[in-house]
Amino acid sequence: MVAGYPLYLDLVREHLAGKELIKSGMRREVERVREATAAALAGHRVCLVSSGDAGVYGLAGLVLEELARRDLVLPFKVIPGVTAGLAAAALLGAPLAHDHAVISLSDLLTPIDLIKRRVRAAAEADFVLALYNVRSQTRVEPFMATLDILRETRPPGTPAGIVRNAFREGQERRVVTLAELVPDDADMLTLLIVGNTRTFTWRGFMITPRGYFDRGAHDD
Amino acid sequence: MVAGYPLYLDLVREHLAGKELIKSGMRREVERVREATAAALAGHRVCLVSSGDAGVYGLAGLVLEELARRDLVLPFKVIPGVTAGLAAAALLGAPLAHDHAVISLSDLLTPIDLIKRRVRAAAEADFVLALYNVRSQTRVEPFMATLDILRETRPPGTPAGIVRNAFREGQERRVVTLAELVPDDADMLTLLIVGNTRTFTWRGFMITPRGYFDRGAHDD
Repeated sequence: MVAGYPLYLDLVREHLAGKELIKSGMRREVERVREATAAALAGHRVCLVSSGDAGVYGLAGLVLEELARRDLVLPFKVIPGVTAGLAAAALLGAPLAHDHAVISLSDLLTPIDLIKRRVRAAAEADFVLALYNVRSQTRVEPFMATLDILRETRPPGTPAGIVRNAFREGQERRVVTLAELVPDDADMLTLLIVGNTRTFTWRGFMITPRGYFDRGAHDD
Repeated sequence: MVAGYPLYLDLVREHLAGKELIKSGMRREVERVREATAAALAGHRVCLVSSGDAGVYGLAGLVLEELARRDLVLPFKVIPGVTAGLAAAALLGAPLAHDHAVISLSDLLTPIDLIKRRVRAAAEADFVLALYNVRSQTRVEPFMATLDILRETRPPGTPAGIVRNAFREGQERRVVTLAELVPDDADMLTLLIVGNTRTFTWRGFMITPRGYFDRGAHDD
């Protein structure tokens, strides 16, 4: 059996022939995980499809939380994948080539103060930032607060990459500066990468140097 | 043509039949990139193989730095991949299910003070940490300093996952606590994931909750 949000199941439709499907809508994550768990308990082999990597803001954590809460010993495997952040980075050039922080700006499950604290800590310690769930139509405040913090802590010319639908239909990518970023640049499908103080742009690509050319050094 | 460190070329040997190879050793990253660039300039189609994701501490950044420095307009594509951090996380359960910081502890190219600043910032803002290049035989200080900072800022029972050779021959994974971590737990092949204050363990797996079960909420 294969369970997943219909959009994601559609992305892997060539693998679904002859498989029984458990479809459930967005905002139904817990329900979907419980249905999948129930099917597994009933003896089915169940595959739960997430976009990106199931372990990063995906369903793997939710499944494990559910198994742990009920102390259900079922055989399971987490299969790693390419995250939205990595996919976006590949289209932008090499913005994540050095230390980076991955932060979700959704305050539905995380208090806004903790989000701001993380954005500030990452910005002050000169991490590249990969921002998920940047905004929705109604949830704009965390993104506004993030822009304020970034503008306090980083030069206005800092490169920022905006990607939608990486490696999917409707792919869009754009590289701007921190000063140019406006709330309308992001929606629910946007992945935003903000460079560190050393990130530069070249012909529309974002590059975060690792330092090889500074010292002629090499990794060990 | 295919260029890469021999160990990585060996991992993809089934795709190399009939291909001309550019092999070069470790500590030869810049040289390898220049050889690959020269071959591309000479009209070859060149594939440069990195382990994990080429854009994360990999060769994509180095290639783009080289192209940018020389303003060489060559067609290129960065193909994203599964990082060592994601592979390790999948074996450990779901430790990266919430905000996390990815930090290399190698001070060959990054000043030790900046590494410490990033570890401290990430620890204080309660990020999960995914640590790369944890130590080598001679380079132990950054790991020692990191342990000191983590022990100052996180409870001793914080789960830590130690993974070597994820999804490769010789795979090893172990979950311990921050208090139990010792320098000998890591070598050049180790990926270390340290949980945030909410990460818990269950039957040997590390799980970082997203908060779904706290509030009955859902993502948007």
